[in-house]
Amino acid sequence: MITLLTDFGTADYFVGAMKGAILSVAAAARIVDITHEIPPLDIEAGAFTLLAAYQTFPKQTIHVAVVDPGVGSARRPIVVASQNYFFIGPDNGLFSYVLEREQNCRVFHLTNEKYFRPSLSQTFHGRDVFAPVAAALSKGVEPAAFGALITDYKRLAPLSPNRAKGGEIAARIIHIDRFGNCITNLTREELTDKMISGGARLRINEIEIKSFKRFFAEDLNSPEELFGVWGSAGFLEIAAFGASAARLLGIERGQQIILTSGGKQN
Amino acid sequence: MITLLTDFGTADYFVGAMKGAILSVAAAARIVDITHEIPPLDIEAGAFTLLAAYQTFPKQTIHVAVVDPGVGSARRPIVVASQNYFFIGPDNGLFSYVLEREQNCRVFHLTNEKYFRPSLSQTFHGRDVFAPVAAALSKGVEPAAFGALITDYKRLAPLSPNRAKGGEIAARIIHIDRFGNCITNLTREELTDKMISGGARLRINEIEIKSFKRFFAEDLNSPEELFGVWGSAGFLEIAAFGASAARLLGIERGQQIILTSGGKQN
Amino acid sequence: MITLLTDFGTADYFVGAMKGAILSVAAAARIVDITHEIPPLDIEAGAFTLLAAYQTFPKQTIHVAVVDPGVGSARRPIVVASQNYFFIGPDNGLFSYVLEREQNCRVFHLTNEKYFRPSLSQTFHGRDVFAPVAAALSKGVEPAAFGALITDYKRLAPLSPNRAKGGEIAARIIHIDRFGNCITNLTREELTDKMISGGARLRINEIEIKSFKRFFAEDLNSPEELFGVWGSAGFLEIAAFGASAARLLGIERGQQIILTSGGKQN
Repeated sequence: MITLLTDFGTADYFVGAMKGAILSVAAAARIVDITHEIPPLDIEAGAFTLLAAYQTFPKQTIHVAVVDPGVGSARRPIVVASQNYFFIGPDNGLFSYVLEREQNCRVFHLTNEKYFRPSLSQTFHGRDVFAPVAAALSKGVEPAAFGALITDYKRLAPLSPNRAKGGEIAARIIHIDRFGNCITNLTREELTDKMISGGARLRINEIEIKSFKRFFAEDLNSPEELFGVWGSAGFLEIAAFGASAARLLGIERGQQIILTSGGKQN
Repeated sequence: MITLLTDFGTADYFVGAMKGAILSVAAAARIVDITHEIPPLDIEAGAFTLLAAYQTFPKQTIHVAVVDPGVGSARRPIVVASQNYFFIGPDNGLFSYVLEREQNCRVFHLTNEKYFRPSLSQTFHGRDVFAPVAAALSKGVEPAAFGALITDYKRLAPLSPNRAKGGEIAARIIHIDRFGNCITNLTREELTDKMISGGARLRINEIEIKSFKRFFAEDLNSPEELFGVWGSAGFLEIAAFGASAARLLGIERGQQIILTSGGKQN
Repeated sequence: MITLLTDFGTADYFVGAMKGAILSVAAAARIVDITHEIPPLDIEAGAFTLLAAYQTFPKQTIHVAVVDPGVGSARRPIVVASQNYFFIGPDNGLFSYVLEREQNCRVFHLTNEKYFRPSLSQTFHGRDVFAPVAAALSKGVEPAAFGALITDYKRLAPLSPNRAKGGEIAARIIHIDRFGNCITNLTREELTDKMISGGARLRINEIEIKSFKRFFAEDLNSPEELFGVWGSAGFLEIAAFGASAARLLGIERGQQIILTSGGKQN
């Protein structure tokens, strides 16, 4: 099984060409789209979406991810072999968050041209390198056959938030979804149930959020009420029921959000 | 075979996660997307699109539909078993139009957690309830194994138009498609060929439509000419050739359209 | 294996219905989407995208393409059988560019209603004609079984550019992709490496482009620098790194671009 996650959009021939390239090598491969709507060239967004989706797939799934501004340059094409999954794509940080979570990762530099498409372009490695390598891997080729083991692969800054002064935690919005829910990088490690019941608050754009819910439609007050809710990717989300929290807050991805652990007396 | 129809969009990890959750349970399942572009939280739109598509699939297909503002609340997750198909999703009216058309429908409340994903979230039943239940169903689990039979499932107002005073029929626009064609809820039952040849007229937004065609490119006059045409879902559509009827009419879904059965003398 | 390329978008039931119609006839068919985001009714755009994608698929793949303003009218439904592929869709020029490239093409008019869906609509041949014919073809039905051989099929103007006066070549922008790269109809036949090293220049909208790169991230100067680069479809593209060349140039598809073969002394 091979999944695809790219910033190619679905209007061009890119995704179709990648699938054709896979199926030309491994006609029996099963291909599943995660998304092709990663914002163009946005590596962090790709890294987050991959993190949120990859573990729902069966073990041994091959995840191909292509957000690749440096295509054709010296940036290396790689395959990551973890205990349970494979990841194929450019070495530009796209697999950072997955590497934080997966065990026993080995990373190989894809150099063995035997597994590339014959007429290799310098602008579309999705079709000419990553697709045929994924197809070969799905047919049982060993990761080490594609090239040398490397350890100096690129990593993004860690996903986890920073402890700020005075016990505050400086988190950030790492994704805004279709419904306008704002996914933060806060997990249950930084924000415990005890802190929530103890009056923890969030502050973003001068707005304070003190309400936490278990699901979107719980205890509905006004459609414009903002609240925190544990999202399906394991991160705290800022949401509003039937409205876009992102619009209500006037925020964009990357913006800072401060967590203060209450003290009920406030 | 399992189809998916949601309001999740294709930019997030949601659809990929649903597919991963299905394939983790039933690796051999065939998954087909109907659409993921139902307007967010728009149950009626989801109900219409499902109605228009489901019968083209082979018998025994499992249709999973998720437009679910009440996820995590008391609204029930259900499976509908009809003579020819299965439908899985929230009990919020999404299957109303299908239930009007299908025979021998039995509806079961999904409560048997044995078939849910282990770490059940309260915000993403698409991945954690509906996907694994569909996968189990595809492997031969009986619908009754998922929970108790219910009869008080939720229904939307019927799709069919109202007879108004003076022999007029008050219909409405139930969908506007990518081409700007405006699909009404008029079928050949309300608007017969005899009525059309007898001078039937439609009135919407002060505009009168008297022309009826068999296909879009028939007897082209002007590109801005509005006409009625029987659409592929069995409903009358208001269309213009090479132009958006919705834009020409300045209308939105839900808007009323009046059918008057002519009398050639007019 | 059956691919789909349409202008149906993904928000409506159209694509799902086509897939259902295929699978109802050939349950084991493998269906791969090329794209459904061809601009509505834009035959040239469909012809280009099909050209760019079709050869990545295994031989004997059946490519179904539907951009069909004349659906229901006298325009003919056809199947093209080339040496390596099949193409199914309306006879309106959609297969022109493919026909320029493929060998030994035979074209058949689809008239044998035995292979159509029983309740044939006049507005959705994608579902009612092309899908079931593709399904039958995938099961081994001979192309000639669908109807008579024809030779007067419709062709668009050739894709290749014109030689203008003074040794200039008048090319045009045939596609603008998601990243804003502007694909021209110039191939290595019109623009040789020798011409590039000899100082060839491009002129579009009063802007002159003299820089040519091997890949997007090569020798980065400014993010707004425009350059030519050989794209993955075999055509020269006008691009900028990390920016939309189309926006920088203020151009649309179809616009003319002039190639002048330098002479280093300039």
